[in-house]
Amino acid sequence: MTDHSSKHTGQRMWGGRFSETTDDFVARLNASVHFDKRLYEEDIRGSLAHAEMLYRQSILTESEHTRIRDGLNQIRQEIVDGNFEWQTSLEDVHMNIEHRLTSLIGEVGGKLHTARSRNDQVATDMRLWVVGQCDGLVSQLDELMLALAELASAHTETVLPGYTHLQRAQPIVFAHHLLAYVEMFERDRARVRDSRKRANESPLGAAALAGTPFPIDRVYTTQKLGFHRPLVNSLDAVASRDFLLEFGGALSIIMSHLSRLSEELVNWSSQEFAFIELGDAFATGSSIMPQKKNPDIPELIRGKSGRVFGHLQALLTLVKGLPLAYNKDLQEDKEAIFDAVDTTRDCLSAMTRLIPACHVNVDAMRTACNEGFVTATDVADYLAGKGVPFRDAHHVVGQLVAWCIAEERSLDTLSLEEFHQFDSRFDADVCHAVTVEASVAARQSLGGTAPNQVRQALKVTFDRLAQRDIG
Amino acid sequence: MTDHSSKHTGQRMWGGRFSETTDDFVARLNASVHFDKRLYEEDIRGSLAHAEMLYRQSILTESEHTRIRDGLNQIRQEIVDGNFEWQTSLEDVHMNIEHRLTSLIGEVGGKLHTARSRNDQVATDMRLWVVGQCDGLVSQLDELMLALAELASAHTETVLPGYTHLQRAQPIVFAHHLLAYVEMFERDRARVRDSRKRANESPLGAAALAGTPFPIDRVYTTQKLGFHRPLVNSLDAVASRDFLLEFGGALSIIMSHLSRLSEELVNWSSQEFAFIELGDAFATGSSIMPQKKNPDIPELIRGKSGRVFGHLQALLTLVKGLPLAYNKDLQEDKEAIFDAVDTTRDCLSAMTRLIPACHVNVDAMRTACNEGFVTATDVADYLAGKGVPFRDAHHVVGQLVAWCIAEERSLDTLSLEEFHQFDSRFDADVCHAVTVEASVAARQSLGGTAPNQVRQALKVTFDRLAQRDIG
Amino acid sequence: MTDHSSKHTGQRMWGGRFSETTDDFVARLNASVHFDKRLYEEDIRGSLAHAEMLYRQSILTESEHTRIRDGLNQIRQEIVDGNFEWQTSLEDVHMNIEHRLTSLIGEVGGKLHTARSRNDQVATDMRLWVVGQCDGLVSQLDELMLALAELASAHTETVLPGYTHLQRAQPIVFAHHLLAYVEMFERDRARVRDSRKRANESPLGAAALAGTPFPIDRVYTTQKLGFHRPLVNSLDAVASRDFLLEFGGALSIIMSHLSRLSEELVNWSSQEFAFIELGDAFATGSSIMPQKKNPDIPELIRGKSGRVFGHLQALLTLVKGLPLAYNKDLQEDKEAIFDAVDTTRDCLSAMTRLIPACHVNVDAMRTACNEGFVTATDVADYLAGKGVPFRDAHHVVGQLVAWCIAEERSLDTLSLEEFHQFDSRFDADVCHAVTVEASVAARQSLGGTAPNQVRQALKVTFDRLAQRDIG
Amino acid sequence: MTDHSSKHTGQRMWGGRFSETTDDFVARLNASVHFDKRLYEEDIRGSLAHAEMLYRQSILTESEHTRIRDGLNQIRQEIVDGNFEWQTSLEDVHMNIEHRLTSLIGEVGGKLHTARSRNDQVATDMRLWVVGQCDGLVSQLDELMLALAELASAHTETVLPGYTHLQRAQPIVFAHHLLAYVEMFERDRARVRDSRKRANESPLGAAALAGTPFPIDRVYTTQKLGFHRPLVNSLDAVASRDFLLEFGGALSIIMSHLSRLSEELVNWSSQEFAFIELGDAFATGSSIMPQKKNPDIPELIRGKSGRVFGHLQALLTLVKGLPLAYNKDLQEDKEAIFDAVDTTRDCLSAMTRLIPACHVNVDAMRTACNEGFVTATDVADYLAGKGVPFRDAHHVVGQLVAWCIAEERSLDTLSLEEFHQFDSRFDADVCHAVTVEASVAARQSLGGTAPNQVRQALKVTFDRLAQRDIG
Repeated sequence: MTDHSSKHTGQRMWGGRFSETTDDFVARLNASVHFDKRLYEEDIRGSLAHAEMLYRQSILTESEHTRIRDGLNQIRQEIVDGNFEWQTSLEDVHMNIEHRLTSLIGEVGGKLHTARSRNDQVATDMRLWVVGQCDGLVSQLDELMLALAELASAHTETVLPGYTHLQRAQPIVFAHHLLAYVEMFERDRARVRDSRKRANESPLGAAALAGTPFPIDRVYTTQKLGFHRPLVNSLDAVASRDFLLEFGGALSIIMSHLSRLSEELVNWSSQEFAFIELGDAFATGSSIMPQKKNPDIPELIRGKSGRVFGHLQALLTLVKGLPLAYNKDLQEDKEAIFDAVDTTRDCLSAMTRLIPACHVNVDAMRTACNEGFVTATDVADYLAGKGVPFRDAHHVVGQLVAWCIAEERSLDTLSLEEFHQFDSRFDADVCHAVTVEASVAARQSLGGTAPNQVRQALKVTFDRLAQRDIG
Repeated sequence: MTDHSSKHTGQRMWGGRFSETTDDFVARLNASVHFDKRLYEEDIRGSLAHAEMLYRQSILTESEHTRIRDGLNQIRQEIVDGNFEWQTSLEDVHMNIEHRLTSLIGEVGGKLHTARSRNDQVATDMRLWVVGQCDGLVSQLDELMLALAELASAHTETVLPGYTHLQRAQPIVFAHHLLAYVEMFERDRARVRDSRKRANESPLGAAALAGTPFPIDRVYTTQKLGFHRPLVNSLDAVASRDFLLEFGGALSIIMSHLSRLSEELVNWSSQEFAFIELGDAFATGSSIMPQKKNPDIPELIRGKSGRVFGHLQALLTLVKGLPLAYNKDLQEDKEAIFDAVDTTRDCLSAMTRLIPACHVNVDAMRTACNEGFVTATDVADYLAGKGVPFRDAHHVVGQLVAWCIAEERSLDTLSLEEFHQFDSRFDADVCHAVTVEASVAARQSLGGTAPNQVRQALKVTFDRLAQRDIG
Repeated sequence: MTDHSSKHTGQRMWGGRFSETTDDFVARLNASVHFDKRLYEEDIRGSLAHAEMLYRQSILTESEHTRIRDGLNQIRQEIVDGNFEWQTSLEDVHMNIEHRLTSLIGEVGGKLHTARSRNDQVATDMRLWVVGQCDGLVSQLDELMLALAELASAHTETVLPGYTHLQRAQPIVFAHHLLAYVEMFERDRARVRDSRKRANESPLGAAALAGTPFPIDRVYTTQKLGFHRPLVNSLDAVASRDFLLEFGGALSIIMSHLSRLSEELVNWSSQEFAFIELGDAFATGSSIMPQKKNPDIPELIRGKSGRVFGHLQALLTLVKGLPLAYNKDLQEDKEAIFDAVDTTRDCLSAMTRLIPACHVNVDAMRTACNEGFVTATDVADYLAGKGVPFRDAHHVVGQLVAWCIAEERSLDTLSLEEFHQFDSRFDADVCHAVTVEASVAARQSLGGTAPNQVRQALKVTFDRLAQRDIG
Repeated sequence: MTDHSSKHTGQRMWGGRFSETTDDFVARLNASVHFDKRLYEEDIRGSLAHAEMLYRQSILTESEHTRIRDGLNQIRQEIVDGNFEWQTSLEDVHMNIEHRLTSLIGEVGGKLHTARSRNDQVATDMRLWVVGQCDGLVSQLDELMLALAELASAHTETVLPGYTHLQRAQPIVFAHHLLAYVEMFERDRARVRDSRKRANESPLGAAALAGTPFPIDRVYTTQKLGFHRPLVNSLDAVASRDFLLEFGGALSIIMSHLSRLSEELVNWSSQEFAFIELGDAFATGSSIMPQKKNPDIPELIRGKSGRVFGHLQALLTLVKGLPLAYNKDLQEDKEAIFDAVDTTRDCLSAMTRLIPACHVNVDAMRTACNEGFVTATDVADYLAGKGVPFRDAHHVVGQLVAWCIAEERSLDTLSLEEFHQFDSRFDADVCHAVTVEASVAARQSLGGTAPNQVRQALKVTFDRLAQRDIG
């Protein structure tokens, strides 16, 4: 049933130019066991379910089933204990385990492969693995959101400039900024869960490509393995990898968010911003410049975004123009997605550890608000609130700020008299309205930066995480 | 409130090397109206909802609201009628419409922009546009699935070789092959719908980045515009583009599926396969080689997959390392996603028209099954069904096929006596079992290629499409 | 000879679902004239050379040649004058011109296509176009280098911190920083020229794929069109697009450099750095925050890097797995490379205009050097120069800087006595050595930041550009 | 001098959620020694050259130099012998070797790092490594071209259809087809050599970023290490990675060519084409379908193209928007380029072994020419050669072929009388002109498929390779 069980009867094809024999080189290139052995648990789970089904369908006898089951369990233990000898000559994880099974229990081991091919077997393994990784990612995203929310909860009154174009624009509170990332990671979580849905379908029983004449029960193995449903077209089951493309896309988006947060951490750690100081474990110093703290971990995370994007592109290129059903090209799906997942999970873990270890320089953030007329918008809004047409209000503020620059004054130091030089409609409350604190407090719109709005958003976040038993 | 309303007070910065004045060149580079004007409908819908909300919240008077509403409706009509003059100097769709509104109704037009910025405005427009495109894509995917299913319904008994590694492997029915693509496009449909969920959230009211002090009602505009919910963090609302990355990913996966189907159509149209003949409208001939029919449309679709993958990569690169909140870089999101959507929709449309126009060469498919011992697996399965250990069965079949090759015989021409020369456990029914028809009929497993299984799958497909009022 | 001259005898294939007739939609999708008409000049040049060669080889008569030549020249003029009617139904630039030629001069127009196919024709056009664009890019890179060098020449003594990890590390002069980019663009120039070498080979005469039985003279057309040599394999000539992949790679690298410079301009324009102020034409202000200057152009350039990277990926995907020789997929090479070139050239032009319009804030740069102990390395180097083992020197400086931080002192304010508290081997000259000016002056190594070294590098740059008649 | 020598004084930052201590996890993420240790030879070569230069410049004493040199040589031997203990806690190859050096020869080991930083050290190592890999690739490309040319030399008369759009178009000889790939790989070779030029420049002596006050001689180390010239800007020297982007581009293009050849091998190995049979070592069989031979190696190579394209994209993303000078992100350059090089070299090696092991089915190729009217173009050319206007000739041939299809005749079986039914200008020689052999023989244009032209091209190829001492 196995479609591509192979035999390397090597003859040396080519003259003296190569030092390695052809067989060994080609066998090594062809083999995947050095990277797909990490699927051993999924492979054994799949085989156990398949064997049990074969027994229930009277394709295996009870005794055959028992021996196969015990053999597989023993192999799992050997692998866990580090006592399993992986052989490149056996190509992949499937053949390594099959070979060992037969050496343990004899010819009956071969019966395990009744009504199964490596084509549906490898698809099953990969889908089980992706489902497991999705669950891990969901937990990690929750933990990162918790770390961000916990840091935010200490900074619902910490003001800093909000930036557009990396220019100071309007004051916000730091918690609000951190919660923007919580929203991104919450959507990432939903995307991972949607990816999981489509991965969580069973190809087992599709056999090589066309199904099998044996009276198998695909619904049973589907349930046994925790899949949501069986894939209902056998060619699709062995030939499709869109679940990996989608998953790679979700991982890339996570990395894009981490790269943005990392860029901000790098900026904020600079002497120019000096908004935060990273924990010692997440930065490296220079032995001769003790004040220097290189934000290595955020830089690395930022750099690793390209790595994951590249793997996504590799997967897309891989499937471009591939005819149905299985093609050997598909072996290349594994290293790309393995490294994409490992990288993303490492980066999530690093960021989750890094966030609580940040020292926030509240004073530096506040000081940055004093410069740059970050409340100029508030003056315009103030006048507009008095019924002044917006364009007129803009014009007034433009003149006011120009005068401040010339006089080296900041908005919050102006007297009412000085305001009146520009427009008579200012009242005494304007002197309060132009303060940074009043500016943020005024932004009461849903999702705005007013501290009470932010505290409410924070509460929603904590409640959501608590419902998931996080935090 | 508009954060980046700009003013080009051009001075010529640079000497005689440039023929175009600096202003014009930079203004043109900076402008987006030549591509974002296609968002006019979304822009006007957003403005109408915003204006109505401002009126309900007593920020606009009834009269102001009426004039703004009527002005916007007039502008929409002007655009539809081709009577609107788009100006590059006004940069983008938003400023073109705002400028026209003010020229139509006077200064009150400026009041529309109370509690709004171009930052939340453009995010609103893009999200409305994506939601609309998702709906269009869902319909197109349904239509393509219908076209495939309709073609399949005529070929539930048409046998052809199923391929792995582009080698004939086991016989299948053509409908089964076509339905594999239906499954892929069904998942694509689900992915588009999941993308739509996350696009369908309202950024309107986030203003420049921090929310607004005006007493706006974001829930009202959310409902008015058909959004599922308001985005709950104002920085996230203006800075995030993950909805575009996800959508670009979904489009890329659709294109990967179309590229695979296209590759098969190209292969099948070759003289070597000769399984199908494309309709005249989807191929080009050569004036001197009348028999030649170049499968231009499938080739183009295959080639266009790279285009969409490239746009996804462009979007990922774009957001890599961008600090919050809005940055001008984000203007680059539009052309990439516009072209990705247009390309994918064109390709879906072309494929949907092409499929029913294919002439299927049933005889050529059947003939291809006669060669290549495509039922050899069935012989092994036959013996295994008789209790022969699988490895032994394999061995017997190996010898049998080797003999057939030497004798230039095919499996379906062997007599029982000839079978017996290889194994005594063959019974008379083996002569039937090795026919192509018996082979496909035997694959009764769920999702297998047996015609009755395929007809059942086809029925499920038609029912599903019928529930969506397709077909 | 034209392999894919097509005929759309449209029948409506599909029911009422489509509003546009099949013919029109497919014809539009198939057509390329809306983007390849920009190749008209290359197409006509190629045809003129081909016709002249056919005449010299006695394949055309003198009269035929004259009529064809005059017809082509007239068509060129019609296009330049905007009097040429491009027709989508004629598919591409080649057929539009051929059709017009025949309508102008009659049947003899068809003789132009003796010994030629659209396959070698389009390859010729594209290669001529790329060669021309390479020349344009080389000039633009030279102009950008000149702009950078001219700005640098005013800042060979302007000190600012050199950064690693966005942390202030060691003082450098601003000219040195700018010249780093000159080196990058100089290599980009070399890459473009290397791309040009490989584009500059003639496919003309390869015909459809196999060459032609007519006694053509490919060497003559090669020379006439300015190609370096004829491509020597006809299949390769029509099927290869590696010259576009390489060119796309060179453009991507240029964009990567522009994105880095843009990031620095954005950083430097922030209130936190305040190292430069962009010219008004390259930034947008906010009508209510007059001090705010959004660095739109650098942001756009940074964002556009993704666009060019994406086109490269599109081209790579396009050719992946394409069999020889010509396939319709290759039509997709044009829009990708056209937009990649246009984008890169626009960005180079914008940067070249922007650089001289930057106001450099010399004081802010100098002030930034006062903080951060940027000369700590110099103290260690000083001690090492006195024979102190480097590790010991490091240790001493570590203690010294720690003390300075505690005492809020900077290195250049310490007295010799204070230095002696940490190591007796300090001499009086240490007080000079720790100044920013001494630090930069000391870095006399080849390529180092010492002003005289930088002036020498600048002289080399200006000389190089002068030899090219730039500057 | 080392800028980022780091110290992990780990404290546990985060509660009980993580099983691994923070230190270990972050240290592992930060470390690169598990992949950069492969640079040990380049690292030691660079250090030996640096030490010798320091001695010549009297910065090291003779004794110091001798001890350092001997220590480094000993370390190299330890690594070669497998006796070197790599430590993750020492981060990278540089610190591992430095640490071992100091433990071997004491404090003087630290003097090696006078006037050097890890920033210029790692750039030196990478450039030396790339230069070496380029040399290896050039040899491999030569060997692959030789293999193709050797196979071609046996097939200068073997006719097969040339394809466009995967449709049989015109007959060619198989050698001509193979030589098309030789041309591609010859350009790849030139691209690799151009990449090598730009990699082959010395950053050594740039120190951390600004140069060094020590009186070093960069020209000496440049020559000693075989670099072409020193990089002349110290910031550029440590911050630029365009040499890797360019190299990654050259590798991607090689892979694109290998993917095209692989696709053809897969097609040709199918039962439908049956043009070649792969050697047993390069395909896998199926134990039950002995006639089945899966072209695993070409499929794998085709699939691996995406992997290399992905690494290129990763590198482009990596440098996008990175400010000068060194950033930790750049550590991510290594695994991408290492794997891109290893993959490309493995694939080249596999293809070079695979080509001579191909069995060419000459009869199947010839038979394919009999179908499809592949010489129809020749009939048109024949008439055009008689002075018939091309359009008229086309028309005649169209009618002729239509008649043949109706009568189930092929062109080479027609009598002169039959030709005359369609046009009186046919002479007796037409019956020869329409044979496949006459068709290929007639294509005498430079680069055409006429066997003598192909033999000449083959001779040029062999001569070129012989001059390189290949073959």
